[in-house]
Amino acid sequence: MEVSDCYVSAPGKAILHGEHAVVHGKVALAVSLNLRTYLRLKATTTGRVCVNLPNIDTFLSWHVSELRHIIPHSYGKHEEVKRLDAELVRRLREFIGVTNGNLDTCNMAILSFLYIYLSLFGSGELPSLTVSVWSELPTGAGLGSSAAYSVCLAAALLCASGAIPTPLKEWDHTARWCQEDLELINSWAFQGEMIIHGNPSGVDNAVGTWGGMLRFLAGKIIPLSRVPLLRILLTNTKVPRSTKVLVARVKDKINKFPAIMTPVLDSVDAISCTCEKVLSEMTSEPITGEHYNILEELIDINQHHLNVMGVGHSALDTLCRVTMARGLHSKLTGAGGGGCGITLLRPETDSSVVQTTVQDLKDCGFDCWETSIGGPGVQQHSPLSVKEEVLEILNHY
Amino acid sequence: MEVSDCYVSAPGKAILHGEHAVVHGKVALAVSLNLRTYLRLKATTTGRVCVNLPNIDTFLSWHVSELRHIIPHSYGKHEEVKRLDAELVRRLREFIGVTNGNLDTCNMAILSFLYIYLSLFGSGELPSLTVSVWSELPTGAGLGSSAAYSVCLAAALLCASGAIPTPLKEWDHTARWCQEDLELINSWAFQGEMIIHGNPSGVDNAVGTWGGMLRFLAGKIIPLSRVPLLRILLTNTKVPRSTKVLVARVKDKINKFPAIMTPVLDSVDAISCTCEKVLSEMTSEPITGEHYNILEELIDINQHHLNVMGVGHSALDTLCRVTMARGLHSKLTGAGGGGCGITLLRPETDSSVVQTTVQDLKDCGFDCWETSIGGPGVQQHSPLSVKEEVLEILNHY
Repeated sequence: MEVSDCYVSAPGKAILHGEHAVVHGKVALAVSLNLRTYLRLKATTTGRVCVNLPNIDTFLSWHVSELRHIIPHSYGKHEEVKRLDAELVRRLREFIGVTNGNLDTCNMAILSFLYIYLSLFGSGELPSLTVSVWSELPTGAGLGSSAAYSVCLAAALLCASGAIPTPLKEWDHTARWCQEDLELINSWAFQGEMIIHGNPSGVDNAVGTWGGMLRFLAGKIIPLSRVPLLRILLTNTKVPRSTKVLVARVKDKINKFPAIMTPVLDSVDAISCTCEKVLSEMTSEPITGEHYNILEELIDINQHHLNVMGVGHSALDTLCRVTMARGLHSKLTGAGGGGCGITLLRPETDSSVVQTTVQDLKDCGFDCWETSIGGPGVQQHSPLSVKEEVLEILNHY
Repeated sequence: MEVSDCYVSAPGKAILHGEHAVVHGKVALAVSLNLRTYLRLKATTTGRVCVNLPNIDTFLSWHVSELRHIIPHSYGKHEEVKRLDAELVRRLREFIGVTNGNLDTCNMAILSFLYIYLSLFGSGELPSLTVSVWSELPTGAGLGSSAAYSVCLAAALLCASGAIPTPLKEWDHTARWCQEDLELINSWAFQGEMIIHGNPSGVDNAVGTWGGMLRFLAGKIIPLSRVPLLRILLTNTKVPRSTKVLVARVKDKINKFPAIMTPVLDSVDAISCTCEKVLSEMTSEPITGEHYNILEELIDINQHHLNVMGVGHSALDTLCRVTMARGLHSKLTGAGGGGCGITLLRPETDSSVVQTTVQDLKDCGFDCWETSIGGPGVQQHSPLSVKEEVLEILNHY
């Protein structure tokens, strides 16, 4: 079986409002973060399957005959994509030599790739191909880097298997799939996420697939039809934290001071709903400065609430103070206690202000990117539409 | 008529929790601030009434015959102390030459003194006396300095008139009045406050009179029986602000984001109630570190909420950050937008830490005092129980 080459990319994810509150039944807004993961799938005639993940120094290859042995004998085409094939996972773990214990990033990425590859191609001839991935996203920072990877894998391998078409027309730079194909990509990406995270919420792969903004409430994920693209700074304080510990801390505080904390969660819920309303207005009426004023006020209020929940950190206070000195508003995104923060940029924010602020933040020891939220989900690229430096990396292998 | 000498003092006031929320029907906790105003009343035989207010460079005296002319002819003893005698106020304003327009601090202080003096003595012989006042409180900082002054005036002049006894026994250093006498002092102090503020809430004079802590809800003032004495730092950022503007700002924000702001007010209400409960426990059971932990957490949460209401200020952020660097917790007190903040000191907080912190705050350009909250209200002093530096000032005139 021969497959055709393709380039795909998928965005990361940021929580705009509602982190932590979502654990307690409140609305959260997840948005696509335009730091993207790029994947190149190249057909080869070597009879080998190669995976190159330069971000995590992982370069592996196997002969298709090795991989063929992993598959159980009576193997039909996988149509059920709601649950993991536990037997296949067991065989894969055995194959890569991690039968017990936790997996590191490298093993999880490989396991996830092989699972989707063998599930999609296992019933027929295994194609010879090379997959190279490069991500702009920092890993383990709560920005959905594993989901962006899984979404790219799912999209590229589904195309290669013929399960979905390659949407790119000759004259296109980028193209997206129809709703039905996106559903299929999302469900396979979720399988990848299950391998990597065990029990993922499904938000990250949904954002990677659909892009834009999602409303997340009590386990239900609702993609929002239209949202404006917002310029932001994404700052990684690089302060390590444990999401589990932070979630437990918030829960303890609610138990300790229910009458004080419950209204705070209600207020966060109202912030998410107000934000959703304002963003929706921004797509249906002329965008005004007042829209941005409100978005800034919501960011400030939520950041205070997150401090009340006990998930702030002095590095995040520094982020807020440094950006406020330039008239810009920031909040933590995700688990808090360090980690990442977002800073809203207004349309009129001068690029010199942006550059100075980025430098200020780098001087604090933070990583900082100028990017945007609300952009497109997974897409196919013509080679010309991939940034040169990314193309160079992907074509190096 | 000859009166006997006495020294009295009254404390200032700080809002522990509930500032701004109280305007919207929530509980506020007002506490006595042990920066005190001291008053010496000295009987003289000069036939003159002298008032010395060195804090505001005001030194005035009148012959009793001048003052006699201010009083309407048919003047009975004042028993009704609920409302101001508008005719007397009119005549007094004419006497000191401020018939229209706003009064400055000096004129308000004089008007307030003469009003109480003439109301209490006007029906009989006007005594010849000298009143000297010295306050540790900054004026116009929302710390109840005018109320402390009015409470001292009321207590000393009521004693001088014989309306209440001087409670000090020969062997006492300090003494307080019985409940009924305190009621009378408070009601005359309220008259003084009405002259100075127009439409005072009555909280400041109640705190100056009863000391300790008061619960203030929907215009009702309830003194709390027992509260512990808490060591604090009182910091004046000296950033000028308008209470009226700040109150309007909070109201606007509630109107703009009702669903977001209403829960915040509810949370503040719960903070006041929780704080009241903890303080009450601290008087009925052994005080533990956990009591202080909770008081600190409540301070932090409320400070975030006040920032959400829009009444924070970068100088207050600095106060919080500088004290947090020493492990101490701070919040603004009163109107915010600058003004004053309080920092809780734990019993085990070392005096070297306190001194270093005070120096840090002074280095920021702030005024800073180590004092306490929850101490006694108005009291009479033996000269020996007045701090030497204060005694020196009071006896200078």
